[in-house]
Amino acid sequence: MIIVKVGGSVFSDKKGEPENFDHETVGNIAKEIAKFYPHEDFIIVHGGGSFGHPEAKKYGIREGLPEDWDTANFKRIGFTETHQAMLRANANFIKVFVREGLPAFSVSTSSVFITENGEVAYGDMEVVERLLELRFIPVLFGDVSIDLAKGIDILSGDQIITYLAKMLGPDKVIFLMDVDGIYDGRPGEGRLIQNLSREEIDSLLERLQCTAAGTDVTGGICNKLEEAKKIAEHSEVWFVNGKVPGRLSGAIRGDGFGTRISG
Amino acid sequence: MIIVKVGGSVFSDKKGEPENFDHETVGNIAKEIAKFYPHEDFIIVHGGGSFGHPEAKKYGIREGLPEDWDTANFKRIGFTETHQAMLRANANFIKVFVREGLPAFSVSTSSVFITENGEVAYGDMEVVERLLELRFIPVLFGDVSIDLAKGIDILSGDQIITYLAKMLGPDKVIFLMDVDGIYDGRPGEGRLIQNLSREEIDSLLERLQCTAAGTDVTGGICNKLEEAKKIAEHSEVWFVNGKVPGRLSGAIRGDGFGTRISG
Repeated sequence: MIIVKVGGSVFSDKKGEPENFDHETVGNIAKEIAKFYPHEDFIIVHGGGSFGHPEAKKYGIREGLPEDWDTANFKRIGFTETHQAMLRANANFIKVFVREGLPAFSVSTSSVFITENGEVAYGDMEVVERLLELRFIPVLFGDVSIDLAKGIDILSGDQIITYLAKMLGPDKVIFLMDVDGIYDGRPGEGRLIQNLSREEIDSLLERLQCTAAGTDVTGGICNKLEEAKKIAEHSEVWFVNGKVPGRLSGAIRGDGFGTRISG
Repeated sequence: MIIVKVGGSVFSDKKGEPENFDHETVGNIAKEIAKFYPHEDFIIVHGGGSFGHPEAKKYGIREGLPEDWDTANFKRIGFTETHQAMLRANANFIKVFVREGLPAFSVSTSSVFITENGEVAYGDMEVVERLLELRFIPVLFGDVSIDLAKGIDILSGDQIITYLAKMLGPDKVIFLMDVDGIYDGRPGEGRLIQNLSREEIDSLLERLQCTAAGTDVTGGICNKLEEAKKIAEHSEVWFVNGKVPGRLSGAIRGDGFGTRISG
């Protein structure tokens, strides 16, 4: 079983119009997956891009639910608006996958996960596991979450994947990005790292000065590397360019171009 | 806590255009609920109307998943299409409720319930319970379901409500219909029954000749009465006209016009 994360920047331009969706890129991703399904099982997890992030920021979802009733209700409304925006992104994914004959099925992240300070505290895997048994392709997404500590929070696609990897033990986790993989420096600059062992991640995190939080609400490349370190305990991890046709197939086969992290 | 079921025929005309939605009626329902929230807690469950039913029928979802790969994949696609249609109905509800300042939050039924021959076999109440604690209004809906016996099936809104009533013990369950309540005869004909005890339901089922299945994929009034009998073990049950402004409020207050079933 292979888990594919489609980063927000792959299917959507965060600086573009609200809720813009790159149908061509997602169509190519679906076509590549269709070449391997049903021989191979897949779970898809996608990020927010121009869908979830603007609402999450506007309403300050990550700050949690305050005591004051009016402010809390404003945030409750924001919580539901953010989820609906993510469902609209998700509906685009389902439509494109179905067009390629793939039985992609939407699982609402916020219906099955509960967080504690943004980390998964509880995840009901019952439906996801049975969908896989029945040869569906479950599609989850970064979403709002009920949070045991703060009332409400955001659960990123990357953290969902860490949890899924731990619970389901996939053969491979593939992160699709808008760059060619992990760089020894800023993305697009420096040298692309083609092979990285789990042990080398810490020193890379240091070289990339990954001490502060990332640039978007769910963290950037530093956050990804932190999650990759955890995932690599359970699975091979790939980072490849999701905008370039063929790169996903290469990672699925195992001879592709990008960054491969071995456990 | 009050559970309100909005029947498919209340918000949508099954004989009309595909996916037609009666914004005015749902707006009135939301306005009435807004008069009682947050003093009173609510869960909303809605049916399919012109959204879920056409797909569910077209693909024969209730027949389950067959052995043959091609037929099974056709049904898998239908399963996901039916869910997406229900999510579109649900998105309309959320939008109308949010416009009235209500923090209605979508919970995907198929993400938290598993059935066995169409009856709830497993339901994860974790998120619904915490949403209520945080003063959200969870909104669930009749949906497709992973089924332990048949692979896939349909879970009706009425059956969800029976399960929620058993697990959460609401003060009241209110069914909104497109008629004034339960009739001693065909709906709209015969005499409206204003008070009915739980013990009288069996003889009414007999008088209504409720032996065959209902007329839509989730059963008609006979199915509703069967579920009401189970719900009345845990809660007072009301059947009122959801198309007539004020009737819902009457049922919430307890002095309304319609059918009241006492346990």
